[in-house]
Amino acid sequence: MIPSKAYAELKKRMMEISMLNSTAGVLHWDQEAYLPAKAVDHRAEQLAQISRLTHEWFTAPQVGELMDTIEASDLITDCESAEAVNVREWRRMYERETKLPVDLVEDFVRTTSKASSIWAEARKKSDFSLFQPSLERIVDLCRRKADFIGYDKEKYEALLDEFEPRAKVADIEKIYSGLRTELVELIGKIKDAPRKPDIGIIKRPYDLTRQKVFAESVSQAIGYDYKAGRFDEAVHASCNEMGPLDVRVLTRYYTDDIAEGLTSAMHEVGHALYDMTRPNKVHWGTPMGETASLGIHESQSRLWENMVGRSNEFWQYFFPQLQQLFRKELAGATRDDFYGAMNWVSPSYIRVEADEATYNLHVMLRFDMERAIIAGDIKVSDIPGEWNKRFKDYFGFEVNNDANGCLQDIHWSHGIFGYFPTYTLGNLYAAQYWSQALKDLPNLLDDFKRGQFSRLFEWLGEKIHTPGSKYDAPDLCRRVTGSKLSHKPLLDYLYEKYSGIYGISRN
Amino acid sequence: MIPSKAYAELKKRMMEISMLNSTAGVLHWDQEAYLPAKAVDHRAEQLAQISRLTHEWFTAPQVGELMDTIEASDLITDCESAEAVNVREWRRMYERETKLPVDLVEDFVRTTSKASSIWAEARKKSDFSLFQPSLERIVDLCRRKADFIGYDKEKYEALLDEFEPRAKVADIEKIYSGLRTELVELIGKIKDAPRKPDIGIIKRPYDLTRQKVFAESVSQAIGYDYKAGRFDEAVHASCNEMGPLDVRVLTRYYTDDIAEGLTSAMHEVGHALYDMTRPNKVHWGTPMGETASLGIHESQSRLWENMVGRSNEFWQYFFPQLQQLFRKELAGATRDDFYGAMNWVSPSYIRVEADEATYNLHVMLRFDMERAIIAGDIKVSDIPGEWNKRFKDYFGFEVNNDANGCLQDIHWSHGIFGYFPTYTLGNLYAAQYWSQALKDLPNLLDDFKRGQFSRLFEWLGEKIHTPGSKYDAPDLCRRVTGSKLSHKPLLDYLYEKYSGIYGISRN
Repeated sequence: MIPSKAYAELKKRMMEISMLNSTAGVLHWDQEAYLPAKAVDHRAEQLAQISRLTHEWFTAPQVGELMDTIEASDLITDCESAEAVNVREWRRMYERETKLPVDLVEDFVRTTSKASSIWAEARKKSDFSLFQPSLERIVDLCRRKADFIGYDKEKYEALLDEFEPRAKVADIEKIYSGLRTELVELIGKIKDAPRKPDIGIIKRPYDLTRQKVFAESVSQAIGYDYKAGRFDEAVHASCNEMGPLDVRVLTRYYTDDIAEGLTSAMHEVGHALYDMTRPNKVHWGTPMGETASLGIHESQSRLWENMVGRSNEFWQYFFPQLQQLFRKELAGATRDDFYGAMNWVSPSYIRVEADEATYNLHVMLRFDMERAIIAGDIKVSDIPGEWNKRFKDYFGFEVNNDANGCLQDIHWSHGIFGYFPTYTLGNLYAAQYWSQALKDLPNLLDDFKRGQFSRLFEWLGEKIHTPGSKYDAPDLCRRVTGSKLSHKPLLDYLYEKYSGIYGISRN
Repeated sequence: MIPSKAYAELKKRMMEISMLNSTAGVLHWDQEAYLPAKAVDHRAEQLAQISRLTHEWFTAPQVGELMDTIEASDLITDCESAEAVNVREWRRMYERETKLPVDLVEDFVRTTSKASSIWAEARKKSDFSLFQPSLERIVDLCRRKADFIGYDKEKYEALLDEFEPRAKVADIEKIYSGLRTELVELIGKIKDAPRKPDIGIIKRPYDLTRQKVFAESVSQAIGYDYKAGRFDEAVHASCNEMGPLDVRVLTRYYTDDIAEGLTSAMHEVGHALYDMTRPNKVHWGTPMGETASLGIHESQSRLWENMVGRSNEFWQYFFPQLQQLFRKELAGATRDDFYGAMNWVSPSYIRVEADEATYNLHVMLRFDMERAIIAGDIKVSDIPGEWNKRFKDYFGFEVNNDANGCLQDIHWSHGIFGYFPTYTLGNLYAAQYWSQALKDLPNLLDDFKRGQFSRLFEWLGEKIHTPGSKYDAPDLCRRVTGSKLSHKPLLDYLYEKYSGIYGISRN
């Protein structure tokens, strides 16, 4: 077969897979938002069927043969061409997927699809034992998966690679250790700071409907396109891409906390802006239209959530609007009060509610736990005890129950091990990109004061979104910022912000 | 292959198709309720993919070979066994489907998936010309489909057979002609009736949220299981089965009319009760677990909507509850006023809003139109003019615009021609079953006065729901009621009700 024909045939097959996966996306979204209780088992079967089909299609011997033909040709000479990038990534995934037996793939989907409602129940009752049998099956499936895929040093690496292609545990450990030291120092300074904001302004009853109205209007202002997506509510906030122009956000609002619902909505909108901007029309369904890594994807959500959504300039524009909606609740409050409260730092149980300084400690804790669980060093039944012990070591106080401890996150119920490190990578990339954006875009923060976010959105579109998977994550970072990933920009950013609010200094 | 193994293999293949079709059900439901505007094209591709896959799977030569093996064996000797019933129905569908080229099937789904939003826009603007190009493509596809399938007398029969298996146009014409004469006479008597209810009590502003609360509480009372379904809102009310325990209702409520939203919700719940009761656990995904015909399915929706939901006894229980919710709106109104208004008879433009007496005239009009369109006797561009002319002939007054005329129903945009006759068959079956239920269940109406509907629900379950496709529709009717389908029970039922309300008599 001539190489261009082989590529056309390969792409056609891959587009079929992407199309059916986008249908699975609708099933997932519906499961989180609307699925009736008794329909859980059937939904698991629907998802298992799609996984089996796409796995079979993807791992067909013809796919390997088509790639052989293309790889042996000059069609991929230009390593930045769509052909070269797509075949490079398809090859990487093919080598992973062909190692997995179809039974395992199907069992994985079926098991995890049922597990999330069991996890939700266990968390509600704060009873790990309810979730334990499901988690045992999931851990076993993950360990078997890692064995099939293969690894150099530890099983965990095989799982990590799915989310952060080509990342190595050793590299992550290295960057984490420098970060941890500096974060602990920063948190210590804040603990003893000469002045502190009052969190009270945020932690009071706020009407849920008006929170929703505000979050949706902010999302529209920063660029979310409601004709290519929608907001619904679920137990767990998320961003769900289910087509090139169908990127839906799930949110959750809290009666006694106005920050949590809003910032998590902005977080998911950050993901959505990426999914809505990637070169969708041309490259949707191929790696050229996908993200380079979940760390890169997360950098977009964190940048909008934190660098934008917790900035002084952002609230210069939005605080008066918030006051209009919540006259009574915000009577007598100043913008400075609110900005300070939005940047309140204090160690807490829950990662997703954590401030920017302590957040990464949660991720490091989970990274340690996951590695030990997958290595077989921690038995599933020992997870709560181990979690609580390590939590105290990281944060200096005791976890009060499983819901606030090892049951807090949905990921394990979805069979996701190896994903957590991408959260901290996302924070680091976000800070490094943000630092570059401030250099590239003069007076960017003045835009925010006027409710203008398009210069930033366009810069991100050009620098981060449009390349898709053309460069791998570390390479993209070097190209955009001129340096390799470091924890320094994040610390610089945090110190600059917190010095103003807490009156602390770096040295 | 031994016959029992062939059957197991065939069933496995068919279950795969049902599973993927149930996923398409989620896509359809989402499209009606939640799909973002820009996602329409992608959704069409998702649905087209599933149609292509299931069509390919269903029409595979191996399916025919497996059926040959089973049909030649004694596995189907007992014609009421699951094996016999399933193979009989699969064979019927196989003979249809294998005649259709896959391109046509895919084109059909893609075209109709895009057409429904175009129709919605055209109806909103009451401008047929916006919908005309889509409808021309659809009519062409339907005519080609009929040609591929084949027919005795007219193309329309090939389309009708999809919804009402083995039904003949001539039989429907025959039953319609007797019905039409008697209905016209009844409507004439009501027009000149000595007394009439006042519709005003229904046609005033009612809060939408409280309408929703009421409709959902009624649905629960009559047996709808919210753990195996849910209510959402859409432009067009519908019942969406997407799994054995996932049957969702879409509703629409109207500010200035309390009857319309409620009765259409009860209608869809009638469908849902059927879908929730069919012998799902054992036979889901096979004809034994499916309805014998859409006329039979419709009989269940109409029975709950009309025989139950517009009965005096039903309102003896629910009117006080309605008054609690709408104190101001219903101040001074009596239950008799309300019951009378719920049974107000007056010719009107819109089928779905029509009363029980005039409803079937709408169906007959559409039946005439559809046959002529599919036969090629009416060009698509001439539809509005022809509609308006025939409407005047049926109803005695002019249609004021296309939205109230030929654009009123969504069906054509979905490519559905041949479905409408099942609406009137449903009314006839409903009345005939209802008459039998009143005989079989002593003092049934007294149950309603106490808000009890389980005796009726169970009777329907045993007599109609559980048999699935075991018997064809006319045979099921004879088995349940002892007679073949007739228009007499419907007229008896209408005269009995209207004689009380309007003071008319039959002779």
